[in-house]
Parts: sequence; C-alpha cells; structure tokens
Amino acid sequence: MTDGDDDVPLILTWDDASSGLLEEDENGVGNYDIVNNVVIPTPGAADTRGQNSLRQSWEMNYQEAAIYLQEGENNDKFFTHPRNAQVLRAYLFAHNHLFYVMELLTAVLLMLLSLSEAPAVPFLRLDVYVHATLELLALVLVAFELCMKLRWLGFHTFIRHKRTMVKTCVLFIQFIEAIVVLVRQTSHLRVTRALRPIFLVDCRYCGAVRRNLRQIFQSLPPFIDILLLLLFFMVIFAILGFCLFSANTADNYFRTLEDSIVSLFVLLTTANFPDVMMPAYSKSRWSCIFFIVYLSIELYFVMNLLLAVVFDTFNGVEKMKFKSLLLHKRSAIEHAFQLLVSRQRPDGVSLKQFDGLMRFYHPRMTARDRFLTFKALNQSGATTLSLQDFYKFYEVIGLKWKAKRSGEHWFDDFPRTAFLIFKGINLLVKSKAFQYAMYLVVAINGIWILVETNTFHDGVSWNRDVPFSYIIFLTIYGIEVLLKIAGLGLMTYFSSGWNLFDFSVTVFAFLGLIALAFDMEPFYFIVVLRPFQLLRLFKIKQRYRNVLDTMFELFPRMASLGLTLIIFYYSFAIVGMEFFAGVVYPNCCNNSTVADSYRQINVTVGNQTKLEEGYYYLNNFNNILSSFVTLFELTVVNNWYITMEGVTSQTTHWSRLYFMTFYIVTMVVMTIIVAFILDAFVFRMNYSRKNREPLGDPEDEKGIVFETGVSQTEALHTLDLYKHTFGVTNLSSLQDMCVALERSGHSSLLFLGRRSRTKSDLSMKMYEEEIQEWYEEYSRTNLQTDETFHRDLDSPEASATDLTN
Amino acid sequence: MTDGDDDVPLILTWDDASSGLLEEDENGVGNYDIVNNVVIPTPGAADTRGQNSLRQSWEMNYQEAAIYLQEGENNDKFFTHPRNAQVLRAYLFAHNHLFYVMELLTAVLLMLLSLSEAPAVPFLRLDVYVHATLELLALVLVAFELCMKLRWLGFHTFIRHKRTMVKTCVLFIQFIEAIVVLVRQTSHLRVTRALRPIFLVDCRYCGAVRRNLRQIFQSLPPFIDILLLLLFFMVIFAILGFCLFSANTADNYFRTLEDSIVSLFVLLTTANFPDVMMPAYSKSRWSCIFFIVYLSIELYFVMNLLLAVVFDTFNGVEKMKFKSLLLHKRSAIEHAFQLLVSRQRPDGVSLKQFDGLMRFYHPRMTARDRFLTFKALNQSGATTLSLQDFYKFYEVIGLKWKAKRSGEHWFDDFPRTAFLIFKGINLLVKSKAFQYAMYLVVAINGIWILVETNTFHDGVSWNRDVPFSYIIFLTIYGIEVLLKIAGLGLMTYFSSGWNLFDFSVTVFAFLGLIALAFDMEPFYFIVVLRPFQLLRLFKIKQRYRNVLDTMFELFPRMASLGLTLIIFYYSFAIVGMEFFAGVVYPNCCNNSTVADSYRQINVTVGNQTKLEEGYYYLNNFNNILSSFVTLFELTVVNNWYITMEGVTSQTTHWSRLYFMTFYIVTMVVMTIIVAFILDAFVFRMNYSRKNREPLGDPEDEKGIVFETGVSQTEALHTLDLYKHTFGVTNLSSLQDMCVALERSGHSSLLFLGRRSRTKSDLSMKMYEEEIQEWYEEYSRTNLQTDETFHRDLDSPEASATDLTN
Repeated sequence: MTDGDDDVPLILTWDDASSGLLEEDENGVGNYDIVNNVVIPTPGAADTRGQNSLRQSWEMNYQEAAIYLQEGENNDKFFTHPRNAQVLRAYLFAHNHLFYVMELLTAVLLMLLSLSEAPAVPFLRLDVYVHATLELLALVLVAFELCMKLRWLGFHTFIRHKRTMVKTCVLFIQFIEAIVVLVRQTSHLRVTRALRPIFLVDCRYCGAVRRNLRQIFQSLPPFIDILLLLLFFMVIFAILGFCLFSANTADNYFRTLEDSIVSLFVLLTTANFPDVMMPAYSKSRWSCIFFIVYLSIELYFVMNLLLAVVFDTFNGVEKMKFKSLLLHKRSAIEHAFQLLVSRQRPDGVSLKQFDGLMRFYHPRMTARDRFLTFKALNQSGATTLSLQDFYKFYEVIGLKWKAKRSGEHWFDDFPRTAFLIFKGINLLVKSKAFQYAMYLVVAINGIWILVETNTFHDGVSWNRDVPFSYIIFLTIYGIEVLLKIAGLGLMTYFSSGWNLFDFSVTVFAFLGLIALAFDMEPFYFIVVLRPFQLLRLFKIKQRYRNVLDTMFELFPRMASLGLTLIIFYYSFAIVGMEFFAGVVYPNCCNNSTVADSYRQINVTVGNQTKLEEGYYYLNNFNNILSSFVTLFELTVVNNWYITMEGVTSQTTHWSRLYFMTFYIVTMVVMTIIVAFILDAFVFRMNYSRKNREPLGDPEDEKGIVFETGVSQTEALHTLDLYKHTFGVTNLSSLQDMCVALERSGHSSLLFLGRRSRTKSDLSMKMYEEEIQEWYEEYSRTNLQTDETFHRDLDSPEASATDLTN
Repeated sequence: MTDGDDDVPLILTWDDASSGLLEEDENGVGNYDIVNNVVIPTPGAADTRGQNSLRQSWEMNYQEAAIYLQEGENNDKFFTHPRNAQVLRAYLFAHNHLFYVMELLTAVLLMLLSLSEAPAVPFLRLDVYVHATLELLALVLVAFELCMKLRWLGFHTFIRHKRTMVKTCVLFIQFIEAIVVLVRQTSHLRVTRALRPIFLVDCRYCGAVRRNLRQIFQSLPPFIDILLLLLFFMVIFAILGFCLFSANTADNYFRTLEDSIVSLFVLLTTANFPDVMMPAYSKSRWSCIFFIVYLSIELYFVMNLLLAVVFDTFNGVEKMKFKSLLLHKRSAIEHAFQLLVSRQRPDGVSLKQFDGLMRFYHPRMTARDRFLTFKALNQSGATTLSLQDFYKFYEVIGLKWKAKRSGEHWFDDFPRTAFLIFKGINLLVKSKAFQYAMYLVVAINGIWILVETNTFHDGVSWNRDVPFSYIIFLTIYGIEVLLKIAGLGLMTYFSSGWNLFDFSVTVFAFLGLIALAFDMEPFYFIVVLRPFQLLRLFKIKQRYRNVLDTMFELFPRMASLGLTLIIFYYSFAIVGMEFFAGVVYPNCCNNSTVADSYRQINVTVGNQTKLEEGYYYLNNFNNILSSFVTLFELTVVNNWYITMEGVTSQTTHWSRLYFMTFYIVTMVVMTIIVAFILDAFVFRMNYSRKNREPLGDPEDEKGIVFETGVSQTEALHTLDLYKHTFGVTNLSSLQDMCVALERSGHSSLLFLGRRSRTKSDLSMKMYEEEIQEWYEEYSRTNLQTDETFHRDLDSPEASATDLTN
C-alpha cells in the first residue's frame, strides 16, 4: 500500500496539454487530437512544479473517470461525454442536483399553468397577463437550460439528439404562442399545450418515465397488428349487424352503418351490453347468437391475445434492456479503469487513485467509507484493484457501512436489573404467543368496528363522544408499540417495514383520537382510516407477506407507470378542454339517446318535490381537474359512451374520434401495466423457485450484505496514508474508526455494508448463465477493437449504438 | 425376421391357468397369485394342442399389452387394470365406442330434459309423466353402466374411486326424486338437478373437461387467498364509504353498511361506475379520491395480481401434468413390453408379436400400416424392437402412411400438351403476382361492400335483384378456386387450411347467390356472411398467420374450456330457474332503484303513441335458454347489477348471494381462460424462439413426418411371413404394396408417415433437458423396484399415485 508519489497516469485526459505536465501552450485547448494518448514525461522532471501539475492531471483523470461511471449508472450514452475542459464546465453545470431540480420545477410549473389558464379551476383563476408572463418566464428558463446543453453537447451532437430537437421545436412554438397570448390579452385555441409534458419527460429525474414510454413504443408494433385484427372483426360484424338489425325500427343501435360501428366499438368495451342487444333480442331470441359470437371472439379471444402479445414483447424488452444496461455499465467501468491506472502499474488501481475517484463520484462519502468500499472491492487482498475486482464497482457502491455490533441487543450495556427487564420484554415481544394475541386483538377490533358500523342505520353522527372501544384498542396498540420499541430497540424496530406500518397506523389512530377529543372537524377523516389497522392480519400468512413485499418492491415502477399515465391524461385533458369545455350542462343533451343521464328536473310526487338528477353533466372538460376525473372514468370504461354521446350530441360526431383514440391509448397503457405486473410477479416467483429460496425469507429482507474486517495496524496506517500522502483534510470518520478500534479492545473490527436488493440484483441471479455468454460475446467484440481502444474513446458512438440496439 | 413358432411368452397373463398351456384347472380363474409369473413349459410339449394353447396365450398377452398401452394413452391409472378373464370381459364391454356413445347420449339426454321440465321452453314443453319416464329410463341406463363398472373394478376399487362414488350418490338421489315426481305428477323444488352435469363429466369423451375442472380446482388455493385480500379491502372501504357518504341523503349507494358493501362489490366489476360516485361527487369534488383509490387498488392492482397468481400456478400445473402423463406412458410401454417378449428373446419384440399387439390396439389398421409402423419404430434395423425403440411407440402410432409420390405434380402422367397447360396454371397459381392480385380483389370487394352498405340509409331491403358486384366478385373467386385446384391438385389444395377456408367461403357465397336468386328467405343469412371473405387479407402478414394458426391449434382446448363453462352455466341455470323463474316481468320492480330498466309504458308525445321499453325483464330465468342468455350477460358483467337488483327487489336480499357467487365463479373460470390463452401463446412464442424456427414455417405445417423405405424383397418376404406364419387373413393392403412396388419399377419405395403436431410434441422439444432428468429420476426409482417388477404389477397403485401427484 505504498503509492509512489511520482506515479504518472497511463492516459492523460482533456486538458493534459494545458495543465502544465507538458510545456504550456495556450492553443492546446480544444485540441483533442492528442487527448487520451499515452504521455511520456521527461525523466527527472519531478520537481515541485511537476509534482503539482502531476497532481492536477490526476485530478482531471479522477473527474473524467467519475463522469464515465456516472454515465454508466445513468445509462447516458458515451457520445455525449464531455471532450475538453470548456465542455466539461458546461457538463458539470448541467449535471448537478440544483440544475436537475430547476429543470423539474420549470417543467412542473409549465404543466401546472393549465390550472389557471382559460378554462381555469375557479379558485385558481389568474389574469391572462399573469399566467402568460409566468409561462414566458418558465420558457426562458427552459431555453437557458437548452443553451447549457448546447454548450456541453456541441452543435453537432445537439442537432442529432432527437429528443432535444423535439424539445427545442416545442419550446419555439410555445414561445410564440405565449407572446401571442400576451399581446392579444386572451387565450386562443392552444392545443399545443398538450405538448407541455415533453419538458417534464426530458427531466433527468423522470428517467423512469422515459424508459416506460420507450417500452410502450417498443411494444406498439405487435399491439397495432392485433388491434387491426380487432378493428377488422369489428367492421365485419358491423356490416353484418347493420344487415340483420337495421330493419327493426325500435333498434337505434344499428340504424346506419356508422351507428353500427360505434355500437360495436362500445360493445368491445362491454359498456353498452346488454342494452345494445335488447331491441333485437326482444324481436327474435336467436339474435343473441350474433352478440355472443361477437363478444366471444373480440372480448374473450382477441383482447386476451393482445395481452399475450404485449406480455411476450414486454418480457423480451425487459431482458434486452437489462442486457444493454449491464454491458453499458461494464464498458463504463473499463473506460474509468484506463483512466485510473498509472504508467508504472498499468493493471491495477491503488487506494490513492480509488479515493480520488470517489471524491468526485460521491463527494459526500466519508474517508472511512471510501476506504471500506475499496476493501470490499479488493477481494484478492493485493495492494491494487484488478479490472476483475473493479467490475463489481456498481454492486459495492451503494453499500451503507456500519461497524458490526459485538452484542445482540441494544440494552447489552445496561446494568444487570435493567438488562433483565429489557431481556424479558425482548423475549415476550419475540414470542409467538404475543404475536397471536395481537392478531386476536386486531381481529376483535375488526369485528367490533363492523358491528358498530352496522348499528348506525341513520348514517354516522360525528358529534358524539369518543367511543369507549376506540380508547381501549388504541391503548393496547400503544402498549404494543412501546413494548416492541423497548424490546427490540429503536433501530431494529423501524428497520422492518411491517413495524413501520403498525407504528404509523397507531400514530394516525392517536391523531384521530385527538381530533375527536378536541372536535377538529376537518381531521375526522383520520378516524375513518381506523379499519386499515385490520391489514395487519395479513401478516399471518406467508403468501400475503410475499404479495405485499412484492407490492412494495414494485412500488417505484408502479409510480413511474402512474406518472406516465398522468402525462397521457394531461395531453388528452388539454385537448378535451380546448374542444369540449362547457359543452355539457344540466338538461343539455335532450336530442340524444343518453338524455336521461344529463337530466336535472324537479319531480313532484304527492306534495313532495324531489330533484331527479342524472349527474353526468359533472363529467365535463370545464377545467383540468374535472377533465382528469372524466378521463379516469373513461379509463374505467363502464358507461363511458354516455359521456361520449353527451359531448357528441352537443358538438359534431367527429368528437367520437377523441374518445375512441383515448380508449385505445389507455388500452395500450393499461395492457402494459397488466403485463408489467404479471411479468414482475412471475419473475419473482420463478426467481424464488430457481434459487430454492422461499420468498420473503428473512435472509431476503436483509438485502445485499458485504463484510470487511479492518485490523488496528491497518487502520492506523490508512489514517497516516490519508493524512500525509493523499492530502485529504476531512478525516474525522477515519479517526473515529481508529478510536472505536482502540476502545473495543479487539485487534480488528468487522464492518458490514448493506443495501436493499434491487430488481437488477434479482436479474443478475436469474440470468446468471446468459450473463456469462453476454460478457464473452462483449469481450469478443471488444478484443477486435482492443488495439484501437484509445481511438475508440474519440469516436465512441459506434460502441454506444452497439449497446443500445 | 424368422419368428420361431414355438416362442413362449416371458410372462403369462390372466388366464394362463385356464387357457390350457398348463393343465386345465377351473379354480385357476380369479386366482391371480400366479398371474405374471414366469412360466416354464415342459420341454417337448410343442404338439398341436400345445401350439394352439400357445397361440391362445400369446393372444391374451397381446390383448393385455394393448390394454396397457391404451391405459397409458388415456391416462387411466393401472390400479383399474383388469386382473382376470371375467373382469376382462366387463372391461372390454365398458371400453368400446358403442358403450362410450351410450354413456354420452344418456348424459346429454338427462341434461336436455331441463328444456322440457317445469319452467320449460314453450315449444318443447312435455307432460310431467313423459319427461319423468324419460328421466327414469336414462337413470336406469346410467345404473346399468355403473353396474358394468362395478363388475370391472371390483367392489373394493369401486368404493375407493371418489368420482364414481359421487356419481352413485347423485344417481340415487335423482332416482328417488324422479319417482316422487312421477307419483305426485308435478315437479317439486329440484335443485339437485344442478348436479346432472356430473354424468356428463364422467363420460369417457369428456376427459378434457375433467382435466380442466381438475386444473381449476388446483388453481383455487392461491386464487382464494388473493380473493380474500380483495374482499378484505372491499369491506374496509365499505366501512370507510359508509362513514364518509351516509350523511348525504341523496346518496342511495351508501345508506346502510350492506348497501355500502353491495355497491363496492358491484364497483369491483366497474358495473356501477361512475354512477356510484356521482351523488358524492356532486356534493364534494374531493370524494372522487375515495373511488379512484379504491379502483386503483382493487381493479388495477389486486385483480391483476389474481391473474398473475393464477397464471403462475397454471404454468406449473401444466408442466407437472405433462410430466406425469409422460412418465405414465413410459410405464405403460414398459408393462406392455414385458408382455410381448418371449422367453427365447427377452430383450426384443419381434414383428409377429408387434403385429399381434396392433391387431388389438388398432383393429382398423391395415397389415401394411402395421408393418410400416414396426419399421418406423425399428430404427436400428435389427429383427426385434428393443425397449429403447419401443419407447417411441406413442410418437409413431398416430402416423398416416402414404407412398411417397415419385413426381412433383398430380398431372405428371398427363400427355405433353395437357401437362404444359397444367404446368402453366401451376406456375401462375404459385406466383406472388397472382396472390397479390387476389388480395387486391378481396380488398376492392371489401371497400365495395363497405360503400354499398353505407348507401343503405333506410335499412337493407332484401327484395331487390341480386347485386351486380356480387356476381362479378363471386365469379372471380370461383375462377381462383378452379385454377388452384387445377394447378395444385385436389389433395394438395385441400391439405392447406387456408385453401379450405377460401373454398368454404366461396361455396357459402355461391349458396347465398342461389338463395337470393330463388328468393329463399330463410337462407338470406348466408348472404350476410359475405364480409368474412375479407379475412383472407390477413394471410398477407406473417404475424396474423401465426396468430390464426395458433388459434386453430388452441381450438380443441378452447372448446373444452367452453364446455366446462357451459357445465357451470347449467348448474347455475337450474338453481336460478328453481328460485327465480317468473319473478321479473314488465313493470315489475317499481320499488327498486332499477325500475326504469324494467318499465314498459306507452308514452304519448303529441299525437304519436310510442312504446318505451326497459327490456330488462327479458333477462329472466323463465326457462333454461333464457337463463343461459341471462348468465352470459352476467358473465360479461356490464350492468349485471340491474338484473341482480331486479330479482332482489322481487324476492329477498339473499338472492344477491346467488349473483355474487356466480360472479366469483365466472371470474375464476375466466381468469383461467385468460391464463390459458396467455400460457399457450407465450409457450408457442418461446418455443419458436428456442428452436430458432419461425412460427408458421412451412416445415411446421407439415407436422411430424417419419420416412421408411421398403425394398421389393422385403415386401415379398413380409407378405409371405404374414400369410403363412402369422395367419393373418386380410392382406390386401400388403398385396397392394407389392403390386405398387413392382409397377413402379424401382427396387424400393419410400413411405411417408404423417401426423399433425400436438401440444405434447411441442412440450417434448421445449422441456428436452428436463425430460432427460425426469427419465433418469424415474428409472432410478424404478431400478430400486426392478427385482420386484412383477410384484409391482400386482400392486401398481403405488407407482400410479407416484405419477399423479
């Protein structure tokens, strides 16, 4: 572990020329012909100035390596890699969380503007000049971000980056329109607002949404094929239905061919069944055959086929995505490795270099963690990391390090009496009897709530006293929480998701109690959430634990899919608002077949006047919130044709196109969501079958664990090394480690690195064999370009595109 | 190929004692302690009587071997294998197609009786004594069948066979009830009629339905777990909804806790969305959150989870079923092999023995085909079949043998001029240009039909002349069919499913033309089927061909699933009829929330009187056909609650239980159908990916092909052998072969055996590696019991149960 201070990097990056290792010449800037070439310093040049410039060039190397590794992690293609010092400045500016947050906020602001624009939500309405100015401001910010991107990417790459180009065009249009609005002081028909989500999708933080969209588009071709089959059968049956039923004057569903097609399209969603059949059925009972055959073919066969095809494509796409990401990461690691090795030892990365890299890659990481990460990578025990060691970089980097506690319990250091009390509580809390007693309490609580609720025949009255049972059960739950915390310790208690759930439910119930006691009406809804406590019962059975665990694992992906759906909703909501705002109102659609649903009349029965309401006028596009609710109703599909027919009767029959398109789009997204859930669950179950490991095993919950032992001498030596050789200033963490080692009295201390298991880890294990093949294939293609490796860095687009297709 | 005439079977079966090979003793019957023991004949006993008895005992062996192989094919367990000659007679009586057909017809008759019983279909109503007598007759037949089964199985096995016992009990109950009906001359509340499908399910021909039911029951445990989760969330939300919305007097959906639960159950099916939300939504816009969260959790998450879990279980069950079937077949082959080998050559089956077996196994097979099948099995070319050869028995047995034609075309033997003409037609028909021209014609026809139909604004009038376009297009299609038949030959033309489809559509169109021309009104529906011609367009794209091919492959399974569904329908229909017959009628449910749907009133607008109909009274349980339609509507789910509420308002609120149970049952069956379709498609696609073979490859369409060459000397020798040694009388097929060989002038002739590919073949290829493992595992467990192999035959239940779990 002796790092020669005069190690020279094998490869000099970006501004090697301007950094002073070679003679200074100003025209070296931007000249990257000599970038990445091996540089041979003149012997005996190790004077102070040389030392400094050497350190500077190492620092540049660390930085570039860190950038490579970040690109690998984020799946950024290497052809957007910064090429010289100037570009680097723009790159660094555009790649930090401040910039990302600004990007996100601007995009969200732009989208939120539609709350206040023309058909605005009543209590958020803004004057035209206010919201137009806000929009212009946001657009200027977006333009600024784009300029930074242009500076970083260079004009050439910028032009060829499709997403950025589309964004630029949309920006341009939005700019002009915002100015027009400002000048005219009124909003015109601005359908282009539907394109605003592009700014959100382009955000760094919305990478998951981008991936979802890509996956949706990749699943489209087979989807469209089957969709055509579906529509084809629909048209055939529409012609058939028209021929068969148009003679029946009582049948409004098949009067013209267009009626016939629309009826069967709606029937595809089952929304007008059995009504669509009834007039024909009442005339001849045999006519039901037509509908049964149609539904059997379309709904029960072709629709499922659609799911099967999407599921299959989705499966393949997931695997290919995993493969390309894996190889991209590997390539990033190789690039970084080349930058970190020195001329003297070209096949290993020393601690010093690794530490330098980590200072750029993870600035917040403590010196101790950097050292422990190095040790975790360094399985062979040599002084340097080989490329094979370094390949595990991404597996190790997310680990949280903690000294392994010598004792079992948090109260081990307590005096004898206290220890025995806590030990008793610990044993009690861990006992099966205690657990089942709690299940019993929850079950009784559930039955109590059910019975209690059932006795309120005249609705729930809130202005009563706090019910007695509430206090009793809450007390029991409170005691349980306290006992558990006392017995297990705060850390252990909260490390289990189930305990966290118990805790929050109990706290909520407590807040509800306070709300009741102090009569705070707006918080009554908390009281109502009480029944959720019953969910705890599902811990009893293994399968439920698995299902709920998988649910939590899926949650991030589900959230991103939900966000994707919301983006589609947003675009459709804007279009809907532009065309259909204010077209439906009570008693509006009297000349349509769905008039009843829009009726609002006073009916006098005897001497009582009652308001008979159809309510459907509430499903409108009058503002963006109403539009969202309306679109959700359309997504659920049931009775969607009432909304469609209502709007159609007030506008033209081309409006149907909007609703039908929306149905098909949501069908795509929903099918993909179903395919995703199917895929995720089947994958998890296959995984646990393959590894003969029960799901939700305690081992499983721990996630990925690495262990590293540090001896006292090693710790002191490292501290010394950091202090004197690396010139790192903030060493408190390392010093703490040395102190802890001394205090413990042992000669060495064990450290545990932990992180939760991700889908990628599961995939790694699932595709174990295939991964080896991929690696071999990858290294074969790489071997061919091995001699040209350095040249490869100049034109990495080839290899980058290799990985993406 | 010289079969020693005095070969003695290695094992003597059933009536070895009574057949005269050993000294006759009558008490040998039923004494199966010495069955399956190796019998050593006294040397020099080959006199005529010995010869005869030897032949007889061989015949017995052939028959038992054939029975073993049949049991293997039909997945009958070996513990129902006949043990002695008397049992054999009962077995043979109960195992032939006449018996099976009788079984089926009796069961169908029993089920059809409900068309004529009490709430009968009007035009099929029968007097009580007529249908009761018919029923008694059918039940007597069933009883007779059961007696035969009892004789075959023996009392002990009969008692332990669960399905048969259930059938006996049901039979008993039905008997008593039928007599009661006959005595009282009126039908009482006969819910037990719902059990009638048991007779159908027990039929030999309904094996697929039995398998489906078993699969459904096997998928149930995980299904029920998730269902409980679903219902649990429902109850929690019901309590929540009741607390939140019961204060709103305009909201009928959450008035009591029961209302609340029912509303949310219906919401689970989306059938009352968005209506259920509207009263609350109109009061406070925030209430939509409750419904959105509920639907997101229940409909979009838990429901899909249900599918995922069922899909996963289904997958596993399919594979295990395939494994157990495969091993069962292997075991059957081994049993049969032991019966076919002789003492002299205990490791090979000679042609004579194979031929003897096949005469029992496949009595209709010609001598030539028996010989060719033997050759196909006999890959090594030795005179006898080893066990390894014999393992392929089931792969080879279904082959249809045909001499390979020497020429390419059917018109090869025509005179020169005719040959050239037909050759030209052949080339034309096979050309891409011709195909695309036909696609163009079909497309134009489609557009024509669409435009033509669109011009009928006032409904289709049938009493017009035959449209000109119809005749033109029909002529083109007719010419196409004739050209194709002329160019490809009748056999080649009809061997393609697509051509068959073209042909039948064209013939239908022609029949339609005749119907139009001769004004035969009832056949007009044929004309209406014209648009189906457009389906031909889907041949263009590979993916559609795959999809449609897979569809045809799936058809048998789909049909059996459909039948399973119908059986469920039947039971529910009977229960529905018994309780709800005649309860709904026009204007019946005026005190319910769905009164509108049952209304039938005359409305006078101006001076026109119009009948306003709700039509839902048509969805009743008044007879079994109406019940089926009603149940289909409930399956489609949309607006099912209208039927439920209508019936409930006329009876008690316990009726809801019937509808909810039905919903859950159909949900199970439907989920399994979806899982099946998913599984089948994903399997097909994985298969074609794994074997790097495009789906719908021409090679694929051919199915499984075996080739066998027969030389002239071999043919003559075989003929001789059959004539003199085997004593087979019907040898015309072998003689034809010899003649064909002579006429062809070649010294040998190639025969092709073909059969279509089944799912089992695909599975064989898919699980190739696993199958080897299974076999090894199987032979390991077998090796341990190898010495006790013969004893094993006496108590094969152990190995049979081994296979089934």
